[in-house]
Amino acid sequence: MFDKILIANRGEVALRVMRACRELGVKTVAVYSTEDKDTLPVRYADEAVCIGPAPANKSYLVMANVIAAAKNTGAQAIHPGYGFLSENADFARACADNDIVWIGPSPECIESMGNKSVARDTMKRCGVPTVPGSDGTVETVEEARAFAERVGYPVLIKASAGGGGKGMREVHKAEDLESQFLAAKSEAKAAFANDDVYLEKLVLRPRHVEIQILADDFGNRVALCERDCSIQRRHQKLLEEAPSPALDAETRRAMGVAAIKAVRAVDYRSAGTIEFLLDQDGKFYFMEMNTRVQVEHPVTEQITGTDIIKEQIRIAAGEPMTCAERAPFTPYGHAIEFRINAEDPEHDFRPSPGTITKFTLPAGPGVRVESYLEQGSRISPYYDSLIAKLIVWGSTRSEAIARGKRALDEFKIEGVNTTISFHQSVLNVPAFVEGNAYTDFIETEMGD
Amino acid sequence: MFDKILIANRGEVALRVMRACRELGVKTVAVYSTEDKDTLPVRYADEAVCIGPAPANKSYLVMANVIAAAKNTGAQAIHPGYGFLSENADFARACADNDIVWIGPSPECIESMGNKSVARDTMKRCGVPTVPGSDGTVETVEEARAFAERVGYPVLIKASAGGGGKGMREVHKAEDLESQFLAAKSEAKAAFANDDVYLEKLVLRPRHVEIQILADDFGNRVALCERDCSIQRRHQKLLEEAPSPALDAETRRAMGVAAIKAVRAVDYRSAGTIEFLLDQDGKFYFMEMNTRVQVEHPVTEQITGTDIIKEQIRIAAGEPMTCAERAPFTPYGHAIEFRINAEDPEHDFRPSPGTITKFTLPAGPGVRVESYLEQGSRISPYYDSLIAKLIVWGSTRSEAIARGKRALDEFKIEGVNTTISFHQSVLNVPAFVEGNAYTDFIETEMGD
Repeated sequence: MFDKILIANRGEVALRVMRACRELGVKTVAVYSTEDKDTLPVRYADEAVCIGPAPANKSYLVMANVIAAAKNTGAQAIHPGYGFLSENADFARACADNDIVWIGPSPECIESMGNKSVARDTMKRCGVPTVPGSDGTVETVEEARAFAERVGYPVLIKASAGGGGKGMREVHKAEDLESQFLAAKSEAKAAFANDDVYLEKLVLRPRHVEIQILADDFGNRVALCERDCSIQRRHQKLLEEAPSPALDAETRRAMGVAAIKAVRAVDYRSAGTIEFLLDQDGKFYFMEMNTRVQVEHPVTEQITGTDIIKEQIRIAAGEPMTCAERAPFTPYGHAIEFRINAEDPEHDFRPSPGTITKFTLPAGPGVRVESYLEQGSRISPYYDSLIAKLIVWGSTRSEAIARGKRALDEFKIEGVNTTISFHQSVLNVPAFVEGNAYTDFIETEMGD
Repeated sequence: MFDKILIANRGEVALRVMRACRELGVKTVAVYSTEDKDTLPVRYADEAVCIGPAPANKSYLVMANVIAAAKNTGAQAIHPGYGFLSENADFARACADNDIVWIGPSPECIESMGNKSVARDTMKRCGVPTVPGSDGTVETVEEARAFAERVGYPVLIKASAGGGGKGMREVHKAEDLESQFLAAKSEAKAAFANDDVYLEKLVLRPRHVEIQILADDFGNRVALCERDCSIQRRHQKLLEEAPSPALDAETRRAMGVAAIKAVRAVDYRSAGTIEFLLDQDGKFYFMEMNTRVQVEHPVTEQITGTDIIKEQIRIAAGEPMTCAERAPFTPYGHAIEFRINAEDPEHDFRPSPGTITKFTLPAGPGVRVESYLEQGSRISPYYDSLIAKLIVWGSTRSEAIARGKRALDEFKIEGVNTTISFHQSVLNVPAFVEGNAYTDFIETEMGD
């Protein structure tokens, strides 16, 4: 095991990793921006090094500064948390070049999964289902029609050069194909000076379901059940739960098998997440792989009894993961995570930076809080607006929901607006309570 | 389910019960002494009624005041917590007489288990092992010798009228029997004006291991595994864990079967605990039954995924317990509870009342805190000195110990002395780490 690890991050995830280190008996080095100098992770660490001012591109994203802090303090390994440098293959290489262990997968894995088209090809090759697509530009209406008839309507026409929804058209029936195809091409041309388009099967009202995996140097590869992250606003997850209310044991097993195939195909080590779209028929399709720990990892920890961060560290240290002996995993109870952001849900979730004048945490059975703030803390406008993650566990989903309501009521934050009231509303929406939330939940059920 | 429950207690257990009520959608009534009027449970409850001044015999122990508070607020049931009126059969009867549901076992069960000799006879009758004893006065040395030879040395001679160790003598070998027998009798005569003595097998270096049970009106009777409470100081438990490091699956099952026999024998309903002495050979003997929820119930909740308080309330409401479908229970991971008392472990654990000037709770994975205090709270000299219970969970006992160290380090309390440093010491004693702690742990290992 390492003697000392540098945590190349800030906020709740920095503290989360430091707690894991303490439990492993490993010393910690915090790095921080001048903006963050008075925060709890900086005090919690055994040592702390200032690496520059805000914003992040002058401190947390400056590889040379982070590497220098590790060299100067004698840290043997770097844990990147999530965000910042966590999916940067060059940084993983820079660590290796400086004889520092990177607590994450190989740079090759990061790169191959970071390129969405390479990732999709890799998955297809190893038999992981992907959303059926034209695999390249579709030149003519006839070609488009042939694809649509092969995979079935509805389909989605997308601009090859596109993004932000421009040149994107849904086609729900055959008679609309021609007009939409031409419209997409002309919109793409206008937006990107390139009218190339391709087609995909459109997954209607999907759920976002993802599999947490761990793989070590000893051939252990485990799937730690799934998380359902369908409650999103503009692709930002707000509430996550495990297990998914939509998965039966058979689909869970099939999804886990697919995830492990992917892990084996790229010879993956460390923690990672394979994200899937789950359609209304229970079929699932690879979306992308995250080659780092995710914000929502605690719900998986709660239903599998596994400390994912400690396992990551053990794996990077060349030790076997300890949870393999409990595999295959079946969900133990039910967990929900609420992301409490400094945002105003009454006003389009606009950021609400400021000073926290009151901060009373919920407690009692089945309640876990991951935060880094205290009364008097200032929420900086330079970083994300995450105040805390509230994670509740119950023996059943309905107990977890009841406990979530109780804990959200106990959580008192003053001085900034928060998303607590938003979460309280979600827990009262029948579609959520019944387990029928899809990625369009916020639009269809919350009127946003 | 009830609409409204009155909680006839104070401190952390009052808040614990109120949290359970909130999760069940039940309104709560707090009762409080003038001394406690500014405490969190009083604010947390939907209603609060002052029932008199400190000490407890002018408020929390005044049955008429508690009953009147329930009648005046329309509470349909009373939860007594632990201590105070929780094992008072007269109070249970007074509730029934006033058409208030008592959340606990029948008055008959409370009485029969409250009388140690009746309890012991009941257990023997239904085949639960008890410490072999002479079952009545032993008149002569010959009679004493016959008993000792039947059960084997060592034996314990106890004064029938006794208590406080007076007239109590250990006999480790046959040649000492006569002298010790005579010495015990003469000491008993001097102390109690009664020289009757009886004999028991002496259990050497036992562990204190107890089984949590639940029983409802539908014939469900479950044993929720065991707790090991061997870390005691003068019969006060300080640290409890579940499961016991000393129990194999077979002994656990046998102890559970014995506990369920006892429950069936007295037609018990509600939560209860059967306490056993476990000897060095893995044999166990009934000690006593507690007919209420215990301070250390959270460790059982953590390893069985069961909310014992909510089950108690469901059972009292005439509903089936919900955990029966998960029975029989096997321990899920490992949990340790640390009782953080306002006491000075450097000075014979003397009480340290005062005002809490700083109160920072530990958090993160596997950490649960049960408290009722906040920064600025005053710890009253009128009540017990419990500040908080810190409960940690780990997938293994060693993970729970590492997490316990981490969480104790994070727990910052200023203004009063606490037992945090004591617990930190315990976690570093090899006998504890190896799972070899007996009820003499504090004397033999901590030099107290």
